[in-house]
Parts: sequence; C-alpha cells; structure tokens
Amino acid sequence: MAETNLQILLRRRPQGAPVAEDFEIVETPVPQPKPGEVLVRAQYLSLDPYMRGRMSDAKSYSAPVAIGAVMEGQTAGEVVASDVPGFAPGDTVLGGFGWQRYSSVAPGRLFKIDPGEAPLSASLGVLGMPGLTAWVGLEDIGQPKPGETVVVSAASGAVGQVVGQIARIRGCKVVGIAGGAKKCEFVTEVLGFDACIDHRGDLDAQLDAACPNGIDVYWENVGGAVQRAVFPRLNDHARMVMCGMIAEYNDTSPAPGPNLMSAVRKRLRIQGFIVSDSGWPRYPQFRTELLGHMASGRLAWREDVVEGLRQAPQAFIGLLKGENFGKLVVKID
Amino acid sequence: MAETNLQILLRRRPQGAPVAEDFEIVETPVPQPKPGEVLVRAQYLSLDPYMRGRMSDAKSYSAPVAIGAVMEGQTAGEVVASDVPGFAPGDTVLGGFGWQRYSSVAPGRLFKIDPGEAPLSASLGVLGMPGLTAWVGLEDIGQPKPGETVVVSAASGAVGQVVGQIARIRGCKVVGIAGGAKKCEFVTEVLGFDACIDHRGDLDAQLDAACPNGIDVYWENVGGAVQRAVFPRLNDHARMVMCGMIAEYNDTSPAPGPNLMSAVRKRLRIQGFIVSDSGWPRYPQFRTELLGHMASGRLAWREDVVEGLRQAPQAFIGLLKGENFGKLVVKID
Repeated sequence: MAETNLQILLRRRPQGAPVAEDFEIVETPVPQPKPGEVLVRAQYLSLDPYMRGRMSDAKSYSAPVAIGAVMEGQTAGEVVASDVPGFAPGDTVLGGFGWQRYSSVAPGRLFKIDPGEAPLSASLGVLGMPGLTAWVGLEDIGQPKPGETVVVSAASGAVGQVVGQIARIRGCKVVGIAGGAKKCEFVTEVLGFDACIDHRGDLDAQLDAACPNGIDVYWENVGGAVQRAVFPRLNDHARMVMCGMIAEYNDTSPAPGPNLMSAVRKRLRIQGFIVSDSGWPRYPQFRTELLGHMASGRLAWREDVVEGLRQAPQAFIGLLKGENFGKLVVKID
Repeated sequence: MAETNLQILLRRRPQGAPVAEDFEIVETPVPQPKPGEVLVRAQYLSLDPYMRGRMSDAKSYSAPVAIGAVMEGQTAGEVVASDVPGFAPGDTVLGGFGWQRYSSVAPGRLFKIDPGEAPLSASLGVLGMPGLTAWVGLEDIGQPKPGETVVVSAASGAVGQVVGQIARIRGCKVVGIAGGAKKCEFVTEVLGFDACIDHRGDLDAQLDAACPNGIDVYWENVGGAVQRAVFPRLNDHARMVMCGMIAEYNDTSPAPGPNLMSAVRKRLRIQGFIVSDSGWPRYPQFRTELLGHMASGRLAWREDVVEGLRQAPQAFIGLLKGENFGKLVVKID
C-alpha cells in the first residue's frame, strides 16, 4: 500500500454558514488494521445536511465532531484487508467511515451488501441512510393512508425523493416543494409527484392550488417560510414529520415557530426522529422493500456526483445553499 | 310539572374575555319528551375551559354554539320520565345536556351510573370528562414511565389534578404548576405531587430546582409564559400532551410558538387530542380504574361548587381567569 490516506478534518466550528477554512485536508499514512478490524477503502462518501449539526457544539442528539477530528459521514467501499470472519478483501460494505479514503473499523459498524443489486452510490442515497430515513419517518410518524395529501419539502433532495415516491406507491396524492423550475420539473416528470411547488414563488397561492383538500402529512426538511406557509393548511389529525429544518441550520438564533394551539384544535402530531435511533436494525426490511420498488420500475432517483474527496467541503457548503440537484455524493479518488 | 325550565343561552360571540352580557338567562316550559326520549332534570353542570372555544365561530374541532342556542356542557342528573327501555324515573345519568335544568334526549347520549359509587358531582370531574381527558392523554400520548419527570400545568384544575395523580401512581416524579401559594399547597399536600411551581413567581428558577433531570412529559393546559419556560427543558424523546392553552384563549391574535428545530434534535412528540374523538368508548375502563384508585385512598380531588344555574356565566368568566380552585361545577337549583 504505497498509497496515502486522505482525510478531511474539522479545523474549527463555523460561525453561521460554513466556509472552506472551517475544514482541513490532510494526507496521512494508511491505517494498519488492529486485530478484529476490517480495513476499508471508501469509494463514495455521502454528504448530508445533518453534518452541519455535527460541526457545532450546541446540544444535539449526537456528540459534535471534535476539532481536528475527521468529519463524520456514511460511505460505501471495498474491503482491503480483514481480520474478521465473514469479511474478505473485495467485499462491498456500507458504514459510517467519515470523510476519508481509508479506515479500519470493527465489524459492528459494517453492512455487507451485494454490489449487483444496484449501483454502489445508490446505497448512500435511495438505498442508504437518506432512504432509510424516509421509510422510518413514514412508518413511525407519517403513516400516510391512501387518498391523503402528503407534502414533502426539499422534494428533489436525498430524503424527499424517497418520501414522496413511497407515499405515491401507497396511494397518496403527493405534492413536492423544491427550489426552481428545473428541480420542480424533475420532481413531477421523473419522480412522478402529482405536483411540485417552487418555494421561490408565491407559496400560499401555489399551496392553495395544489392542496385544495388541505394537508394530511407534512414532511419537514426545511423550516422557515415553507413551514410558515404549510402549517396553517394542516388538516385535522395531520402528522408533521420533523426530519430537519435546513433553511435555519445556519441561523445563530432560532426564529419563532407556530403557535401550538392548533395542535390541540386539530389534534396534530408533530414529531421528530433521528434515523440512527431505531432505523438500522430495520435496514434489511427497508432494503428489500425498496429493491422491490426498483425492480418494478416504480422508484426513480437522481444523484449529484462530485468527483474527488478534496471537493467535499465546497460541495457540502453548496448543499446547505440548495445548490445540489439530487442526492449529493462524492466519488472518492 | 309546574316547574319551569331554566336555560342559559349564548346571546352573542365574545370579543376577547367573555362578559355577562354575552349570555342570556331565560325561563321556558319544561320540554315534553318525544317518543324514544328520556327527560332528565340536571343536578350538576360542569364548567370547563373548552366552552370558550364553542362560543367563537373560529374554525375548531366542533361546531360553535349558535347564537340564541343553549350553551353546551356535561351534566349529571336524574331521569324524570322515560320512553326508553332501560331508563326509568329515578335513574342517575350523565350526558351533555347543556346549561339548563331540563332536557329531553335520545339514549345514545346518556350514561347510566350507580350513584352509590361516588358523589354525583365527581362524575363531572375526576370520574367525568376531565378525568377521562387526563387518562386518555396519558394513555395515548404522555405514556409516562416509572422514574420519569412529569410536569402538569393548571395542576389544581379539573384535568391537572387527575393527570398528576395517575402519573404519581404509575411511579413518576410529578411537578405541578399552579397560580398562588394556596393552590400550590393543595397540589403538594392534598394531591401528593412531589413539587408545585407558582407561575406567578420566577418560572425558570423554580423549574430548575424542581426538575434537575429535565422534563419527560409535559401536560399542556395553559400555553403562554409557562410553555415558553417549559419547552427548552424537555428531554430527548419527551412527549408534550397538548390538551389546552387557556392563557391564550381570549387572545385575538395568536402569539408565536417555539422554534421546532428542537423537535428534530430531541425527537419530541408534540400532540394534541380531544377526548370526544376516542374517549367515551373507553369510559367504562377508565371509570373502573379510577374507582379502584379511590377505593384504595390514592386519589384525592377538590371541587369548587357554585350554587344556582343563574351563577354559571359569572363562574365561567372567573374560570377563564383562574379564579376557581378545583373542578368547577354548578349545583342546579
């Protein structure tokens, strides 16, 4: 292994929107696997909005990335060396190996997958953590019933794509919200949502037109002005699946939210969840279901592939601005 | 029946806090029961905060009381005449007969109860709709587990009393919030809560002292400043049972609520419910459980009994200002 490891570290905590100087790119020796470990060379890195939270030391559901530590992230790659029965060089694996080329990990954090089932990068998106997030949030909170209206914010993004398509397969009317005509066209033409609203336009008028019967399930990925427009349109017994509020991640002080009296009046259920709490033990069930939808041609997806690990910080900065189009992944060189 | 009926009507919709002139007191003939009806003379009327919502024509979970119609409300009384098998003169019944002395109703809206089980007025409070509200909200949303910290606002009120005592019986640490030293003393000394916070004092300091391990279940009866103080103290996976927000019922425009990003970060479940949605079919189960707690001496309650139906409007106006102390009922003359 003459090759070196390439790692991206958190240099300092961002103030507001992250900038390139918040990251540090280093070359280090390829790690030597300890007994009981598997050495993996990552081929794809997933970039996801939750990573912004890990960069801050504000109280959150997960410890922040330490200053000087490798940025966290899901990866897909190949086993290079293994001291663990059941894992052999050449095996394809998923795991949270971080923003780096090589890592040596214990098997509890590895999923072995069949690379023939789908393109490898899909296992970071539609078949990965974002897809599992969509599936778990719908199973546990959204619980869409046939004929209901489901509104999905960040509809062209990694999670939103899957939320809307699963809801559509389950017989719902699905309305996406995305930024710009190009993304909206993708959401309706490729993903097959019933309608898509451009959040740069008049949200109220577009929601009135697209949701004449109100909203039964709202998948919250963005917060801000979109949340303010959707909230009053929730129907009695509506579920609001709190997955993220990316429009507010860089805010240094929180904006006020909706008055909660309507939660009583309408019997709303507003509930947050984190896929890592209970999602991974259900990954096989999720993967089987989604592979079935793929095989029957009912599941489309789009990726935004950035070439080269050194591009990850800029790609991530763009992700928080909505500059990606589809699930953002980095192909590791 | 030489006696007349006495009825309290909604004369007009209140602007902000209701005033006496919003009601009209009339004497009318005692109704003649139609075939298939039961004529009931009410002995107790329950006054409850939700009635403020019924006086407005704003969109709500239930149709408003029409102008000129009898105010709605739960009552307990005695059957005077019956054209329905299974109901005989002298039977004791519960039902939503409204703010009036006599009513003639179909049996689908009647519960026959054993008057020997508990004082009749208790069937409007701890054993009535408020008690059932407490039980259903804890069963379906709060789901308190032994050792958890449960905070109950309006703790000395009709619902709060029962919420806290059930949670205590289930092994929780229970902290009430009430207005003034007298109510707080009642909450700890009579109801047996572990602590009670006076919302007229420094909420933050008192919550810090009473809830050193944060809050796992918050029973929301009041909204306003109490909600703003409690919300940031909710633990991961906390449940916020949205039962009412009485402090804001007279507001003509809604105040902003909490930023909902913490619903994601902490996986909060914020959920409203209305007891009439699913509560009454479970009334027998609830009543049996509560009668068991009464029999074992583990359930205390306090009523604020107002004498005479003509006093109902003033008593209700006082209820919305927190002037009652215990479950407010009117003894019908």
